[in-house]
Amino acid sequence: MNRNDIELFSCSSEHATESSSQAVSAQALGLEVRLLRTLLKAAGNPPILVGLWDGRQVCPVSTPLAGMQIHDRAALFKLLLQPDLQFGELYSAGRLSVEGDLVDFLEVVQQALPDFAKRSAWMKRLSQLYMLRPNTLARARENIHHHYDIGNAFYQLWLDEQMVYTCAYFQTPTATLEAAQIAKLDHVCRKLQLQPDEEVVEAGCGWGALALHMARQFGVRVKAYNISTEQLAFARQRAQTEGLTGQVEFIEGDYREISGDFDAFVSVGMLEHVGLKHYHELGQVIDRCLRPHGRGLIHTIGRNRPLPMNAWIEKRIFPGGYPPSLGEMKAIFEPSRFSVLDVENLRLHYAKTLEHWLARFEQVADQVKQMYDADFVRAWRFYLAGSLTTFRIGELQLFQVVFNRFNNNDIPWTREFLYR
Amino acid sequence: MNRNDIELFSCSSEHATESSSQAVSAQALGLEVRLLRTLLKAAGNPPILVGLWDGRQVCPVSTPLAGMQIHDRAALFKLLLQPDLQFGELYSAGRLSVEGDLVDFLEVVQQALPDFAKRSAWMKRLSQLYMLRPNTLARARENIHHHYDIGNAFYQLWLDEQMVYTCAYFQTPTATLEAAQIAKLDHVCRKLQLQPDEEVVEAGCGWGALALHMARQFGVRVKAYNISTEQLAFARQRAQTEGLTGQVEFIEGDYREISGDFDAFVSVGMLEHVGLKHYHELGQVIDRCLRPHGRGLIHTIGRNRPLPMNAWIEKRIFPGGYPPSLGEMKAIFEPSRFSVLDVENLRLHYAKTLEHWLARFEQVADQVKQMYDADFVRAWRFYLAGSLTTFRIGELQLFQVVFNRFNNNDIPWTREFLYR
Repeated sequence: MNRNDIELFSCSSEHATESSSQAVSAQALGLEVRLLRTLLKAAGNPPILVGLWDGRQVCPVSTPLAGMQIHDRAALFKLLLQPDLQFGELYSAGRLSVEGDLVDFLEVVQQALPDFAKRSAWMKRLSQLYMLRPNTLARARENIHHHYDIGNAFYQLWLDEQMVYTCAYFQTPTATLEAAQIAKLDHVCRKLQLQPDEEVVEAGCGWGALALHMARQFGVRVKAYNISTEQLAFARQRAQTEGLTGQVEFIEGDYREISGDFDAFVSVGMLEHVGLKHYHELGQVIDRCLRPHGRGLIHTIGRNRPLPMNAWIEKRIFPGGYPPSLGEMKAIFEPSRFSVLDVENLRLHYAKTLEHWLARFEQVADQVKQMYDADFVRAWRFYLAGSLTTFRIGELQLFQVVFNRFNNNDIPWTREFLYR
Repeated sequence: MNRNDIELFSCSSEHATESSSQAVSAQALGLEVRLLRTLLKAAGNPPILVGLWDGRQVCPVSTPLAGMQIHDRAALFKLLLQPDLQFGELYSAGRLSVEGDLVDFLEVVQQALPDFAKRSAWMKRLSQLYMLRPNTLARARENIHHHYDIGNAFYQLWLDEQMVYTCAYFQTPTATLEAAQIAKLDHVCRKLQLQPDEEVVEAGCGWGALALHMARQFGVRVKAYNISTEQLAFARQRAQTEGLTGQVEFIEGDYREISGDFDAFVSVGMLEHVGLKHYHELGQVIDRCLRPHGRGLIHTIGRNRPLPMNAWIEKRIFPGGYPPSLGEMKAIFEPSRFSVLDVENLRLHYAKTLEHWLARFEQVADQVKQMYDADFVRAWRFYLAGSLTTFRIGELQLFQVVFNRFNNNDIPWTREFLYR
């Protein structure tokens, strides 16, 4: 059996070329090829060529747009059993590799995937098991430690100067990442209509960029909460360097530990870590701490409809994480009668942000490999590239939601002030 | 027993003045006064003075901010049994009257009302009975006929020149109603990014103002659906007069009867009539008729959380109507994976619109009385004033929701173009 026969055979009959008459029986190709075909079919027959360790190849179409290699038999079986989880695991371990551009490959594969709603009930239930685990205070700390305490030096290698690890706001698509992150901080502050001397609470403050920006540029006083000790150490150092310790207090604490009364509540990129089961608690916290005239803003990754997290992202990147649909976010706002004033979807801005992050990451990949190892580099490449394509194909959204108390009429007459 | 004694007694003990020592026993005041006190207590003890037909008065506070009179005993009992429904019924019939400004009175009363969530389970269930009735095609026609076929001449007396019977968009609070309605039509068209020669479908087109505006100002072709025969006759006449019959087709049909493929779907002030149970059907209609690059906009009265309609409004003004919460609107968008791009809450613009409508209505009230009768005038006054205060106190919202297909990346980079 020569390699050419196998390659032609493995194209599905719908797309078979004339030379498919040379094809040999599936049985002769072995169990692996048949199983791989089943997997590809379940994945919507993406236009990719899959090569196996021994040179056999499978391709559901006549002209593949991308290619990948599986380097050992055990890797194939792992992939068959848990494709969502194992693709990332095997890619990170170098047991599966992608030919050409990873982003292009993932875009081709993701676009072919059948809609989640059409997958089997059993598959769906399995995917949703993680939702049973509550994010207790202790587990929330573990989860955040997992991702954000990798080391500030790592993030400094490829984030913008301000160290903002959330979707930027590109006033034009060609803006730099540095400009776009500052524009995002400003966009958030303008939406909150911050006034000098007001008191603001920030839930989940990262490395402190927004808290310091609000204090420096808008003259407000900020209490910024975070449970990542590495991020807090960095943020406190910045406040010191900038002479802003009188205006900004960085507090080690979960959003549930927020106390005090504030003119504004802001949270950028934290809701993803809260978990659906805790939205009512977050709503109660906001209700408790927001003054009658107060404004709130939640900036979060979201979905067009409820879907489980990708299994690999949940395991390796964001344990306990969940991006909600707008409908699911009602659990934050409705019980306390908050009024949603403005929702903006910045999905393509996150795709653009991730393009920048991925390009910067590739520039320092060798350094990262020295700091950690090759598996770490591949895992991060896969995470950044996969996130990029998921925003680009419209499977993830980025919502900025502005809200206030239902009976507060001191609200902007139009949104024109945001664009002056 | 002199009148002064009664008035003082009826003030609650918390607010009693020194002269309350002159008070007589509750029993001596009669059953009516005791029942009225119970009713006022259930209504959150609003700071109003209620006078009865025989001169007796009840007031839960020492300094009332507004006053009303109940003119007969049967009216009081009706009010006690079904206050939500009967206030409007009795006011319209002139069996109950309000002293001073109706808007001020309603604002004072509505602000005191306890939160719906805190009412008894029995009361809540009773209020929600209407939700069991589906808006079939036949019932939808009846419901719409009830309100919109009163007569075009009536609406022409007090609406703006364009005959727009939905929330206007006041670029400044002092803009005229005429300017604000045109600004609303433009705001909607800009949000939809209409391009010349595009095809647009409008679900629920009123007297045709938006359809004609889109055709005239943006050069698009429009199919506009409506089930109000009076409105359609008027709209068709306008299209003829303006020479726009080649561009705008007014079709007698329910949203469920929409057919064809369109570049944009728009619906302004129709969702309120659709009913929760039918949102998935509306979503299916949009999914069926929207081209891959198509944009959609739904402009609707809404709520901060699910609540039943006011019983009187449901009976007399909008049978089958229901203003949804944003969370409830997911039933339109999620099943077809539509992506919500932008939500704007224009609540105070509706309060302002209603101020204009009420003032214009009062100017022609005598004419309206001649066309119909005094009860009709009072019913409309109560409906317009009640709606005004409900928006003003934050119990009703006005959402404009822009959406598109999840995988369409041809979306505006920012919202700045709306404000150029």
